[in-house]
Amino acid sequence: MKRRGILIVVSGFSGAGKGTLMKALMQKYDNYALSISMTTRAPRPGETDGKEYFFVTREAFEQKIAEDGLVEYASYCDHYYGTPRAYVESQLEAGKDVILEIEIQGALKIKEKFPDSLLLFVMPPSAEELKDRLVGRGTESMEVIEQRMNRAVEEVQGIEQYDYIVVNDVLSECVEELHGIIRAAHNTADRNQLFIEEIRKELEELSKGEK
Amino acid sequence: MKRRGILIVVSGFSGAGKGTLMKALMQKYDNYALSISMTTRAPRPGETDGKEYFFVTREAFEQKIAEDGLVEYASYCDHYYGTPRAYVESQLEAGKDVILEIEIQGALKIKEKFPDSLLLFVMPPSAEELKDRLVGRGTESMEVIEQRMNRAVEEVQGIEQYDYIVVNDVLSECVEELHGIIRAAHNTADRNQLFIEEIRKELEELSKGEK
Repeated sequence: MKRRGILIVVSGFSGAGKGTLMKALMQKYDNYALSISMTTRAPRPGETDGKEYFFVTREAFEQKIAEDGLVEYASYCDHYYGTPRAYVESQLEAGKDVILEIEIQGALKIKEKFPDSLLLFVMPPSAEELKDRLVGRGTESMEVIEQRMNRAVEEVQGIEQYDYIVVNDVLSECVEELHGIIRAAHNTADRNQLFIEEIRKELEELSKGEK
Repeated sequence: MKRRGILIVVSGFSGAGKGTLMKALMQKYDNYALSISMTTRAPRPGETDGKEYFFVTREAFEQKIAEDGLVEYASYCDHYYGTPRAYVESQLEAGKDVILEIEIQGALKIKEKFPDSLLLFVMPPSAEELKDRLVGRGTESMEVIEQRMNRAVEEVQGIEQYDYIVVNDVLSECVEELHGIIRAAHNTADRNQLFIEEIRKELEELSKGEK
C-alpha cells in the first residue's frame, strides 16, 4: 500500500531563514516536494518564473480561481498570491510530503480545507535575536524598522494556531528537527486508519474461525 | 528555563515486544524514566520487588489510593495495579520523559487526567504476524489461543484513542521511531506556550519603544 504524503505549511518571521532551511531540507531528504506559489506581481531582479514564483497575468490567475485550480489564494497590495492545486495533489498522491511556504492567512485556510495538514512555525532562538533582526544593524530607516515590526506583531498573534514550533538556531539541527517532526506525523493513529482497520478485520476473522 | 518532561503511555498487543523495546530505548537515550507499577498480586518466579513491580499488600495499596498517591489504578482478577504518583511527578519536574507501560483502561484514565500526555500503541508489522503470534506454533492449547484472542480483540478496539502507532518490526528502527515521535512532541505549540509568550511580550515592548 502506497503511503500518501502529508501537506505541510511552513511559516515564520521574516528573516527567520525559512528559504535556506527549505533548501537544506530538500537537499538532504528526497521525500519532499516544495510547492511554488503563483502570483500576479512582477518578478523582482534575479527572480525566475517557475523558481521563486509562477508569474502570471491577473486574467490567468482569475481563470485559475474560477476553475478551482488553487488550494488557497489571497490578495496583498493589489496582487494575488496562491498555491496551484494540481502540483500539490499529484505530489501527495505520489507519496511526497508537500511543503507550502506561506503566511498565516494562507496557513489557516489550508488547515480549514485540509484538517490533516501540518502547520509549522519557524522561530528565532530568542526574543533578543528577533529584536536584533527587526531593528537591524542601526543602519535601517525608521520606516523599514516599523514595517518589520508591524509584520512581526501581526505574525506573532497566530502562532498558537500552528501545530509545531521549530527554532532555527543551528541550521543543520533545525533541518533534523523539522524532518523528525514530519516523520513522526506519519505515525499518528489518524493517518494509519487503513492499517488499523486491516489488523482489526483480520483479528475478527481469526476470532470467528477459532471459535 | 528547564523543560518539563512529557508523560508517555506505551501499550500494545501482548507479545508485541514492548518490554524489549523499552529496555533498548532506556539503554540508548538518557532522557527517559520508566515508571514501575505497584500491585497487590504475588511476585511470579524470577520477579523482583522494585523491578517488574512494587509488590505491596492490599492495605498498603488502599492507603495509597486514599492519599491520592496513584496517578491511575485498576483492579484485574481481584488484584490492584497502579502507577505511584511521586516518581512520575518528580521525574517530569526534573525534565525526564516518563514512560508508563500500561493497558488501555489505564491509558485512557491517564489521557483524561493529563491531556498533555502522549499515548503510543505498539503494533506488529502485519495482521499475518499478529495471527502467527496469537495462534502460536501449533503447540498451544485451545484455551491459551482463545485467551490471547479475547485479549487482542479487546485491545484492538481502542487503538484510535491512541495518538501514535509504532510498528515493531526491526527493533533498532522501532527504538528510533519511538524516540523521534517523543522528541517531536516537545515541539508542539501547546508545549511551548511559555516561549511563545516570551517572544510575544518582547515584541510588543519593542514595538511600543520604537513608536
